[in-house]
Amino acid sequence: MVSSVVCLAGGVGAAKFLDGLAHYHPPERITVVVNTGDDLEYLGSHISPDIDIVTYTLAGVVDPDRGWGFKSDTYHCMEQLERYGAETWFRIGDADFATHLLRSAYLQQGFTLSEVTERIRNALEVKVRILPMSDDRVATKIKTPEGLLDFQEYFVKRKFSDRVEDVTYEGADHATPADGVLDAVKKSDVIILCPSNPILSIGPILAIPGIREGLAKARGRIVGVTPIIAGKSLKGPLDRIMQNLGLDVSSYGVAQLYKGVLDGFVIDEADKALTSKIAALGIHVRQTNTLMDSPEARVRLARETVSLAEGIRK
Amino acid sequence: MVSSVVCLAGGVGAAKFLDGLAHYHPPERITVVVNTGDDLEYLGSHISPDIDIVTYTLAGVVDPDRGWGFKSDTYHCMEQLERYGAETWFRIGDADFATHLLRSAYLQQGFTLSEVTERIRNALEVKVRILPMSDDRVATKIKTPEGLLDFQEYFVKRKFSDRVEDVTYEGADHATPADGVLDAVKKSDVIILCPSNPILSIGPILAIPGIREGLAKARGRIVGVTPIIAGKSLKGPLDRIMQNLGLDVSSYGVAQLYKGVLDGFVIDEADKALTSKIAALGIHVRQTNTLMDSPEARVRLARETVSLAEGIRK
Repeated sequence: MVSSVVCLAGGVGAAKFLDGLAHYHPPERITVVVNTGDDLEYLGSHISPDIDIVTYTLAGVVDPDRGWGFKSDTYHCMEQLERYGAETWFRIGDADFATHLLRSAYLQQGFTLSEVTERIRNALEVKVRILPMSDDRVATKIKTPEGLLDFQEYFVKRKFSDRVEDVTYEGADHATPADGVLDAVKKSDVIILCPSNPILSIGPILAIPGIREGLAKARGRIVGVTPIIAGKSLKGPLDRIMQNLGLDVSSYGVAQLYKGVLDGFVIDEADKALTSKIAALGIHVRQTNTLMDSPEARVRLARETVSLAEGIRK
Repeated sequence: MVSSVVCLAGGVGAAKFLDGLAHYHPPERITVVVNTGDDLEYLGSHISPDIDIVTYTLAGVVDPDRGWGFKSDTYHCMEQLERYGAETWFRIGDADFATHLLRSAYLQQGFTLSEVTERIRNALEVKVRILPMSDDRVATKIKTPEGLLDFQEYFVKRKFSDRVEDVTYEGADHATPADGVLDAVKKSDVIILCPSNPILSIGPILAIPGIREGLAKARGRIVGVTPIIAGKSLKGPLDRIMQNLGLDVSSYGVAQLYKGVLDGFVIDEADKALTSKIAALGIHVRQTNTLMDSPEARVRLARETVSLAEGIRK
């Protein structure tokens, strides 16, 4: 029997990894639990950037250059909003607006975020099951010398230029995992922490009471994929944030953040010198080329990751 | 001193007339009171079709073929909503969505429809003052053999194919005129009932308590422009509705509906045989070419209408 796989995910790196995974592993055997700490309200629309990135990527409709939004989308609504003097730093394409409008209308009607996510992924014919981490509102906040910033304000508006003093997940304490999350974690054979930012993307998921405990009790093997290669994050502010927070800016630093969670960790071959340090944390290590610079590379990385997990005896 | 002009308006015919008026009369001396009985909610957005038609037309950005929406607008959001299986019979362009999103966000923040309308017309550099008839919700309902229909359901979704048994203005009894409406009516020299549908567009305005009384007491002369030429409405269901309701389908029938309101009425020269019948209602009549088939024709009709009003002694 093919392993059932649960992935914790957020952002473009995770979506690319999932795309690789779904291209060789039966998508019906994959569940993705997605970060919603980046969600925002814009002109009355509820936007779930990480859910959309994952959904659009798995549907094959994502803009391949940016990694988010629909490919070939236009920006006529946004351009008109600009003429009206509205805030337009969060760029939304015209087709993309449809997702947010529909989601907001459903939420308004009393559907949960999970239900809306399910409808949208079905409409886009995505066979991988996509679950928000929670149907409750959790908001990632970034403490900076300029004050506490909303995630998208820090990330998009200010282009992650602020020094990060702390990251908190507002509302996480009182949030519960979305229906199906704990069950999927419990029953899966393999659990993967995608190559996402451990603080901004995976952190909010692990902060929901019950999820970390669920992972600790899971019978499945839990493996991660490094988002850091040779001390650098390929995209986004992870290296900078780890430095700001006094962490070791390396795969080893990421492994430390995941200590007690991971059974195995896939690092880049460029970092093979870190293998024994990570192994000393009680984590099985596999080195490989972790750069997802082609469809084949995505598939290969996903395959190596599942294979590492399947080879670990618990 | 140039006359100050107040126009009661709704729909494409009114917008064309206003465009003609604003091209020769100082726009700062023009106030338009617009029907909002056609307003609807779509996916959480508040849409005010008549306000938008008037605003876009006066801004010179309207689609000249349809008479509504922005010219050269795209429909990428709508097409995506269609893929999602959402109801899409009310077509909204991508740039047009910006207006509705902004309006809804402002309304949500507690601004009135008047305030939002003012912001949007200023952003579009429209110098004519545009007032919704009321900041309260009034909904035009169409009684048909199939039951009571929302206005846009009757008008757009079912393409005004139903027999109309009655038209009512839900909420009108408890609505108050928007700030500035009664004052403008009181102080203006000329009041124009635009070439709009008297039942669907002007009817809701006159149904707001206080507006009919304000007109009756106004010192300005009140003139209308026929929306019927030779027994036919150029666009829309007016002729059909008048027939359904047992009214005389002619300029005379329209004049009857406006009896007690109008001092003067501009009819088409095709209908000159109706002049004495209308005059017998105590209404001054001018015959002219009322077809607004060119920018010049719009200006000419507006000029004739104001001139008729200015020539009436009260």
